[in-house]
Amino acid sequence: MRVIAPASPFPRADFERGVARLRERYTVELDPSIFDADGYLAGGDARRLDELRRALTDGGVDAVVAARGGYGATRLLDGIAPEEVRPRLLVGFSDLTALHALFARAGLRSLHATMVAGLGRGTDAALAGWIAAAEGAVPAPLDGLTPIAPGRAEGPLAGGNLAVLAALCGTPYAPPLEGAVFFLEDVGEAPYRIDRMLTTLRQAGWLRRLAGVAVGQLTRATPGPDGRTVEEVLRDRLGDLGVPVVRGVPAGHDEDNRPLPLGAPVELDADAGTLTFREAAAVAHG
Amino acid sequence: MRVIAPASPFPRADFERGVARLRERYTVELDPSIFDADGYLAGGDARRLDELRRALTDGGVDAVVAARGGYGATRLLDGIAPEEVRPRLLVGFSDLTALHALFARAGLRSLHATMVAGLGRGTDAALAGWIAAAEGAVPAPLDGLTPIAPGRAEGPLAGGNLAVLAALCGTPYAPPLEGAVFFLEDVGEAPYRIDRMLTTLRQAGWLRRLAGVAVGQLTRATPGPDGRTVEEVLRDRLGDLGVPVVRGVPAGHDEDNRPLPLGAPVELDADAGTLTFREAAAVAHG
Repeated sequence: MRVIAPASPFPRADFERGVARLRERYTVELDPSIFDADGYLAGGDARRLDELRRALTDGGVDAVVAARGGYGATRLLDGIAPEEVRPRLLVGFSDLTALHALFARAGLRSLHATMVAGLGRGTDAALAGWIAAAEGAVPAPLDGLTPIAPGRAEGPLAGGNLAVLAALCGTPYAPPLEGAVFFLEDVGEAPYRIDRMLTTLRQAGWLRRLAGVAVGQLTRATPGPDGRTVEEVLRDRLGDLGVPVVRGVPAGHDEDNRPLPLGAPVELDADAGTLTFREAAAVAHG
Repeated sequence: MRVIAPASPFPRADFERGVARLRERYTVELDPSIFDADGYLAGGDARRLDELRRALTDGGVDAVVAARGGYGATRLLDGIAPEEVRPRLLVGFSDLTALHALFARAGLRSLHATMVAGLGRGTDAALAGWIAAAEGAVPAPLDGLTPIAPGRAEGPLAGGNLAVLAALCGTPYAPPLEGAVFFLEDVGEAPYRIDRMLTTLRQAGWLRRLAGVAVGQLTRATPGPDGRTVEEVLRDRLGDLGVPVVRGVPAGHDEDNRPLPLGAPVELDADAGTLTFREAAAVAHG
């Protein structure tokens, strides 16, 4: 298992504890340069790209886990092509959506889940769920999801952080979404910003050929003085797509961030309020 | 002169005062529905699009001035084509960048300048400068600009609000930028967000065939705890384009928002720190 920091620096204590917890079960490799910090980046692009390229192309690496998100992974996308990525488990979320998109372009699955610093400050139960998903367990079905538009759909799960997805729009690095169940989450984005990002994706045609939409946590999507809530925005921007749409998937920036196997087939039933996983992502070896 | 609200609701007192100031010189028309408010939108899309379409296509309208920005103009872009826009002066900035892009696609100039509510709370001097620009005066050259990359360039001025431009990326509504002097400004965007937006534009190819870049006000671009400033971001993301780049153009969300004739030819001299306007935008009749 290789730990990398392609985005922002991370709280050292959380990270060390996360690595220690992983080392109870896995052989964890990391480069000492991972502790570099250059503003909001965990070292310059050259350092982060070199670390990323080695992690995704070296032989003998079964899993690559990000230290933390923040910002910076999109900056590296010019430096690695999908054809170069060798099959392995990739674990991360938030800014790591840029790398999930890379894996999706390579036709590879990946695991949308908590990163090393988050594992360091998380519960034992969260760690156990993370390990199970990383080792190939198919996640338990999610229920109690809130329908926004009715219907049932099947397709591969795709997506991630809305702001990062919107930032990939118009670039060569957008993930393939045709026939997908589109997952999205975000943190600290006001409702009008979520509206603007979803409007971009609509106008760019990203939402036209989806099988369905499963919205996760929209953490601190605080309404402005105008009072429009993010729920209203979701109904307005996603309710008329003609495919099933739900919100409430327990994944994102809240404390309970369930692992999601991106690229693996799922069944979304908006009428029943369920998201059922059919297969796992890839496998890290214990 | 027609006043419209294609984006967010506006403070009524500022607006009324702005209209009163304009009425000292112009015949100002507006629809009573302009006072509608629906969350962060000045009424539903149908209302705002109808108002916009009439303002841009009716005969006998020489100038169209936005009440305020905020958010909402991008939502209307599916509803009006460049071929439908009849020549007239368009005045606004910020969210109105979406309509400046429409005008640019139509081959029409427009005026990046303060809107009605802003005129209501502005100084007499600001109003006088606005009137002069709206009536065809070529703005005085700007000097004292800070070079980021050296050189001289000529081209039509294009651009506007960075977040709105990034939101148009990947959609059919992006403005033509080939050979342009690219102006951008923003408000309330942290340095890492400005980095992310400029990275999107780089990766989408928007910055490849520019003549130059002229950065305006980046209001409240407050660094995070990591301390990286927006000036560092600009050097990093714009300094290597191979064209002249300056910052410090006095236009945007600060109090001093000088009118900029978008689409009109300008000369950017990064070595001298000047931006010289060759022609005006269009003309409103007094």
